[in-house]
Amino acid sequence: MKYTLGELAEHVSGDVKGDASCEIESVATLKNADASQISFLTNPIYRKQLASSKAGAVIMSAADAENSPVNAIVTNNPYAAYAKIAALLHPAEAFPAGIDAAAHVADDTHIANTVSIAAGAVVESGVTLAESVRIGPGCVVQKNAKIGANTVLTANVTVAHGCHIGERNIFHPGVVIGADGFGFAIENASWIKVPQLGRVVIGDDVEIGANTTIDRGAIENTVIEDNVKIDNQIQIAHNVKIGAHTAIAASSAIAGSTTIGKHCRIAGMVGIVGHVEITDNVTITGKSMVSSSIKKAGVYSSGTPLELNQQWRKNTVRFKHLDEMAKRLNKLEKQLAGKSDSGEK
Amino acid sequence: MKYTLGELAEHVSGDVKGDASCEIESVATLKNADASQISFLTNPIYRKQLASSKAGAVIMSAADAENSPVNAIVTNNPYAAYAKIAALLHPAEAFPAGIDAAAHVADDTHIANTVSIAAGAVVESGVTLAESVRIGPGCVVQKNAKIGANTVLTANVTVAHGCHIGERNIFHPGVVIGADGFGFAIENASWIKVPQLGRVVIGDDVEIGANTTIDRGAIENTVIEDNVKIDNQIQIAHNVKIGAHTAIAASSAIAGSTTIGKHCRIAGMVGIVGHVEITDNVTITGKSMVSSSIKKAGVYSSGTPLELNQQWRKNTVRFKHLDEMAKRLNKLEKQLAGKSDSGEK
Amino acid sequence: MKYTLGELAEHVSGDVKGDASCEIESVATLKNADASQISFLTNPIYRKQLASSKAGAVIMSAADAENSPVNAIVTNNPYAAYAKIAALLHPAEAFPAGIDAAAHVADDTHIANTVSIAAGAVVESGVTLAESVRIGPGCVVQKNAKIGANTVLTANVTVAHGCHIGERNIFHPGVVIGADGFGFAIENASWIKVPQLGRVVIGDDVEIGANTTIDRGAIENTVIEDNVKIDNQIQIAHNVKIGAHTAIAASSAIAGSTTIGKHCRIAGMVGIVGHVEITDNVTITGKSMVSSSIKKAGVYSSGTPLELNQQWRKNTVRFKHLDEMAKRLNKLEKQLAGKSDSGEK
Repeated sequence: MKYTLGELAEHVSGDVKGDASCEIESVATLKNADASQISFLTNPIYRKQLASSKAGAVIMSAADAENSPVNAIVTNNPYAAYAKIAALLHPAEAFPAGIDAAAHVADDTHIANTVSIAAGAVVESGVTLAESVRIGPGCVVQKNAKIGANTVLTANVTVAHGCHIGERNIFHPGVVIGADGFGFAIENASWIKVPQLGRVVIGDDVEIGANTTIDRGAIENTVIEDNVKIDNQIQIAHNVKIGAHTAIAASSAIAGSTTIGKHCRIAGMVGIVGHVEITDNVTITGKSMVSSSIKKAGVYSSGTPLELNQQWRKNTVRFKHLDEMAKRLNKLEKQLAGKSDSGEK
Repeated sequence: MKYTLGELAEHVSGDVKGDASCEIESVATLKNADASQISFLTNPIYRKQLASSKAGAVIMSAADAENSPVNAIVTNNPYAAYAKIAALLHPAEAFPAGIDAAAHVADDTHIANTVSIAAGAVVESGVTLAESVRIGPGCVVQKNAKIGANTVLTANVTVAHGCHIGERNIFHPGVVIGADGFGFAIENASWIKVPQLGRVVIGDDVEIGANTTIDRGAIENTVIEDNVKIDNQIQIAHNVKIGAHTAIAASSAIAGSTTIGKHCRIAGMVGIVGHVEITDNVTITGKSMVSSSIKKAGVYSSGTPLELNQQWRKNTVRFKHLDEMAKRLNKLEKQLAGKSDSGEK
Repeated sequence: MKYTLGELAEHVSGDVKGDASCEIESVATLKNADASQISFLTNPIYRKQLASSKAGAVIMSAADAENSPVNAIVTNNPYAAYAKIAALLHPAEAFPAGIDAAAHVADDTHIANTVSIAAGAVVESGVTLAESVRIGPGCVVQKNAKIGANTVLTANVTVAHGCHIGERNIFHPGVVIGADGFGFAIENASWIKVPQLGRVVIGDDVEIGANTTIDRGAIENTVIEDNVKIDNQIQIAHNVKIGAHTAIAASSAIAGSTTIGKHCRIAGMVGIVGHVEITDNVTITGKSMVSSSIKKAGVYSSGTPLELNQQWRKNTVRFKHLDEMAKRLNKLEKQLAGKSDSGEK
């Protein structure tokens, strides 16, 4: 695939500064790009690399373009423009329509002609697969699940019975959608399983990272809205609801029946307890623990800073006495206030 | 499946308050149940929904039943009664006995007639599968593993060689039982693999959540006792022992050779170091770090509270000086005590 | 497999103390070994078990051997010697060369004669598998991936397109290599996918634990150097680089573009933010959060200690006021210094 810089700029509604006829074949980093490649500049720490870049062109803001020594596509959102140009130059793999002879597909399914099912995939009875769905090798789609047009299950993905998946989703390897939620009643000190009868319902344009798990609802559904982006190794428990355009980074876990608003950004390794509500536009920083509802948009954090172990041991021991320290401080203040008073008399 | 309220009450040894002939077909939430559905009330925050519920019946305690506007099954454990009634109304999928033509089963296996093996499953040589075991699509059962009666491997589960699994277990998709533990010796600054020669031995009535991993022992076995419930995304290292009726919530990790007692409740994202012992009836709250043995039953916690990032930055920096603050506080107290003394003189 | 103690000692360049002709068949723990078994002693807490051990022989240091009541192999690295002897007595499973009739292998692959491919495995077009590679049941190797000699993919492993894997690697079940990194640009408050165009490149002698995920690079590659050991449930994001001989324990997560040096030891549940650099020989203790670069070798930690929940609640609330407490402490010190001054005048 080869495009002129002018064509690429048009594709992203950007302006060319420099030679619009320059031909671009692929993307590369500022540092390693050659004359047939395009790069991008957004992070100011890479600005110094621009001076020595051998890139055929670089996507950048108007401010950066002023002093650019190389051809530029000028736009006010260079990273989004890069995403679109990279997708144009490096189109995602096209899957051949049809069911591989080594795929295992039940008889009573509803499968569009343009669907692609790979060797080793299993599609159970009652499943509906819309136009251009891809079921990759080793994937299992269980009874009566429905998958919307152009959704890709890459490899070794499991979608459990009855789940509803929207259009243009991408599920990376090892994703599990619709396993039973963790629901048990206790009787005579033993656990009894509570049947998990809801589904997982996922909107459009959702991407789910490798080995992430989203459990089915206990009675009603677990719901992931449109354009939610979920990284790897994440746990989403039964009856969680995640609002549109929210992004969650790797290894986070959200406990049961919690609702997360729209446009939230949850960093990696965050834990969120069950039965709380997080409003729209909340950002949680890495490894924080959220143990109650968040009603106001903003940036939230918890945790303690990294230190040399030797110093940390001393500080962490003191944490056990923090309440006592606070009380002693109060007492000192009172004592001293008393002294001052007596001094003034 | 349809039952009268009287029949359901009898099933759970509960009492009917209201119309025992009322017919119930399924379960639903208090809020959304209709006249053919049964719900339950345990959490007081949902008590207000009872007033307006259109449910055919609700399972509840005697106290709640006093003012109930709807038919009730009265019991002193409404949630356990709900679990049993939901299982009756919504029985788990029954799997057809037999080996699917597209399953891959070695010749020298011991497989009961009532076993169900799905397309795409692989069962290696020497494996024993007892009555009514289900091996779902994409599951792999490796050499000489033994699986007890009525255990279900849902889909894409791996049970490694030689592991022993009890009866009535449920393993959700992506579970890995018996991978090698993380054991390496160091020689000349390089790691040498220490062969992992033990098994995983799992009791009866154990449920294991999606993508959870339980490693085989280094020399002796990793052991999970009866009625243990393990949520998704959990790591259990080699030679861990988990006592009966303990429950562990999602994304927790237990390091090697640690022993956990019976009837413990480990919340989500908890970390437990290796080579420690936790006694019976211990509860650990979410995201805590356990770094030494716990010898006394009780509720344990660690961590810091969520705050606005701006405030947290200030507090977390101070944490690095907590030991110094404690010393300064001591000094002030001494100074002030000295002053008081001198003042009195 | 049976060896004399003399043969075993020679295998590890150790010295025999006792009966070199004693025959050893297998390994066991100090506590449970019988006369045909060999054990090892490294951890001083097990020294008392040596006195009553019925082992045929024990691998130990010269200091421990002085008073040993049983036959000994004396060496200055007993654990490494144990690892080698255990591997000799219990050799890893040998896989039969050849492609199982129920494996699904594309036509245009490059597969050495000694490769072993199991039932239910899928090998896509353009893949290269070197001598004695093992592709276990349910594994998926996608287009144009290359796997070096003697590497073992145990079961249900996924290696995505174009990734390069070295020699003598072991990937445990559920490992995912080369899923897309978590890269999205935002435009009009919606996420746009940034194509992930790099590979994962893994050196030799790497072992990767069950359900661990390593994402492909965004433009350039994610790189894991030789002899790196990675435990279960770990997330390694796009463009991370991990130096040779580094070991990472379970359930840790490393965010994008971070570089970790050689010979580091990262404990379990550690989180490391993106775009930082960690130098060689750094140790991070369990559950720590690393939020900036580490330029000096050493042991680092973060977190707070486990306490009874009742006490923890009091302390954790005080944490929110730590900055204020520090300021009040400063003020008291000044006040008191002022008082002292005025007292002296």
